[in-house]
Amino acid sequence: MRDLISLGLKIQSDKILILDQEKLPSEEIWLESKSPKDMVGFMRTLKIRGAPLIGVAAAITLAKFSESDPTRDNFIKAAHSLREARPTAVNLMAAIDRMLKVFSQVKMANPAKLIDEAEKIFEEDVALCHAMGTNGAPLIESGDSILTHCNTGGLATAGIGTALSVIRTAWESRKMIHVYVDETRPLLQGARLTTWELDKLKIPYTLICDNMAAMLMRQKKVNKVIVGSDRIAKNGDFANKIGTYSVAVLAKHHGVPLFVVAPSTTIDMSCPNGDAIPIENRNAAEVHFPNALKNSPVYNPAFDMTPKEFVSAYILDTGVYTHWPHA
Amino acid sequence: MRDLISLGLKIQSDKILILDQEKLPSEEIWLESKSPKDMVGFMRTLKIRGAPLIGVAAAITLAKFSESDPTRDNFIKAAHSLREARPTAVNLMAAIDRMLKVFSQVKMANPAKLIDEAEKIFEEDVALCHAMGTNGAPLIESGDSILTHCNTGGLATAGIGTALSVIRTAWESRKMIHVYVDETRPLLQGARLTTWELDKLKIPYTLICDNMAAMLMRQKKVNKVIVGSDRIAKNGDFANKIGTYSVAVLAKHHGVPLFVVAPSTTIDMSCPNGDAIPIENRNAAEVHFPNALKNSPVYNPAFDMTPKEFVSAYILDTGVYTHWPHA
Repeated sequence: MRDLISLGLKIQSDKILILDQEKLPSEEIWLESKSPKDMVGFMRTLKIRGAPLIGVAAAITLAKFSESDPTRDNFIKAAHSLREARPTAVNLMAAIDRMLKVFSQVKMANPAKLIDEAEKIFEEDVALCHAMGTNGAPLIESGDSILTHCNTGGLATAGIGTALSVIRTAWESRKMIHVYVDETRPLLQGARLTTWELDKLKIPYTLICDNMAAMLMRQKKVNKVIVGSDRIAKNGDFANKIGTYSVAVLAKHHGVPLFVVAPSTTIDMSCPNGDAIPIENRNAAEVHFPNALKNSPVYNPAFDMTPKEFVSAYILDTGVYTHWPHA
Repeated sequence: MRDLISLGLKIQSDKILILDQEKLPSEEIWLESKSPKDMVGFMRTLKIRGAPLIGVAAAITLAKFSESDPTRDNFIKAAHSLREARPTAVNLMAAIDRMLKVFSQVKMANPAKLIDEAEKIFEEDVALCHAMGTNGAPLIESGDSILTHCNTGGLATAGIGTALSVIRTAWESRKMIHVYVDETRPLLQGARLTTWELDKLKIPYTLICDNMAAMLMRQKKVNKVIVGSDRIAKNGDFANKIGTYSVAVLAKHHGVPLFVVAPSTTIDMSCPNGDAIPIENRNAAEVHFPNALKNSPVYNPAFDMTPKEFVSAYILDTGVYTHWPHA
């Protein structure tokens, strides 16, 4: 496989390397994924994460796996285990489906074809990120104070991000903006990853706890909300990191527009509406960290669903839609 | 001084002891406060906290200090330093004002009178807690699923709490309820302290991250919200732990009633409305904990303000008010 490099995933000298996002920002450690099993483990522990990036990583993993001349059963088994690593992000399923289609077309694992497809998926994601940034940046004005949730940047995609691509593209076109970063409990992707990216990009930001967003909105310190998505249903309802629905209700109450930024690979036309999107529940330890009462009963959905009526516009790679085009 | 015992504050063998709430729930350590300076330090670091309890602790501290025969200046200085330890909770100011009034009536520090007043403040708080519980419990029905924020129990008062007193009194009158506990970032009073109290009381509960409350409300898994307050303005607007306003907006959007529980000592008739309540800003380290990007810029208000229109009823020691009686 040829070398491909993104912020959180590298193919280098025919090795698949991931930047351990569980350890960021205190340590920057690259881990090698030597098998589909490795990658499934990395995905489950969120060492690699971000709806678009896990799709790309799954494709790359299957392509690499095909070089080891697996049986048909083992290849399909590997595809299924990757597919089941995270249930909510549909980009993962979409990427795997593409790989399985190529696989079935060539009857048996054909490394050249599969590698070609995986590289295409990687490069397409880079292009999708650019397109979202270019489409969304005109919605941002100098003086904007933008709230974002979770991490939607280079660490979540093969390119420059989804929601963060819009923010970055606006900033790089010299719009003076300020970003409020929700820390995003329980795994603190905002506090650990978005801050790390914004710091590198030198984009001015302030970190807040998720529960401070409402106060900022009431004080008119936030005038736009920009978030990503892990799955958009046919009717425009969307799933995203837990806390997004909370932000959406607060934004609506305060008259602050909410923009959802996602590549077309995030749309699931087989999902009629948001209530049909499977929501991953994760373990109690994430909420217990760092110092809750041991063994306290916990509810820990990794995502929530926001109905379409909370969305002011969808910023996709194909354009900006104030009305959902697929409803 | 005679022995007085509450969950977080003890006067025992003439010593003032506080349960270190910064260390809970992993360690239960009692610390001795030997001077007003000690107590100011304990309050600032939230080793002792809770609007009613810090008022009681300040009074006890001044009474004890008067035994050391301080100069008039030193006594007043001590009172001022305690008053300035936490700017938002008005119970603190109210308790200190009572002590200063006794002090000025007796011209010089008079331990007997001051000790008497401090003991009265302690015991009154115990009675206020009982009254709030008794007044509020009838609003709770079997089958209720109640969201609460921060800690409002025995650790926050000299008695059985404010909002948690209502929950506890309802539970002890055999109403089958379930409590959802907001972890309450950044200092996690919900995850550390409310869970600890509910666990001891054997009241069924589930710990959630603050950003999960909206999803629970949409799923109709929460049908009441009960919170405390650090200061209620003359018009009924109230300040409480950061995140309360967020919960209030979410509750209103989902048609879930919000009850505010507070003793009369929380009312500040000199504050015309919520915007006049001083909001304490605390240091970035609290939000950086446990693993945010080092040195990331932070906004960390310890409280927010909720306008009166979000309140379904005020549960005070004097009664339940669906319309604020002092407006």
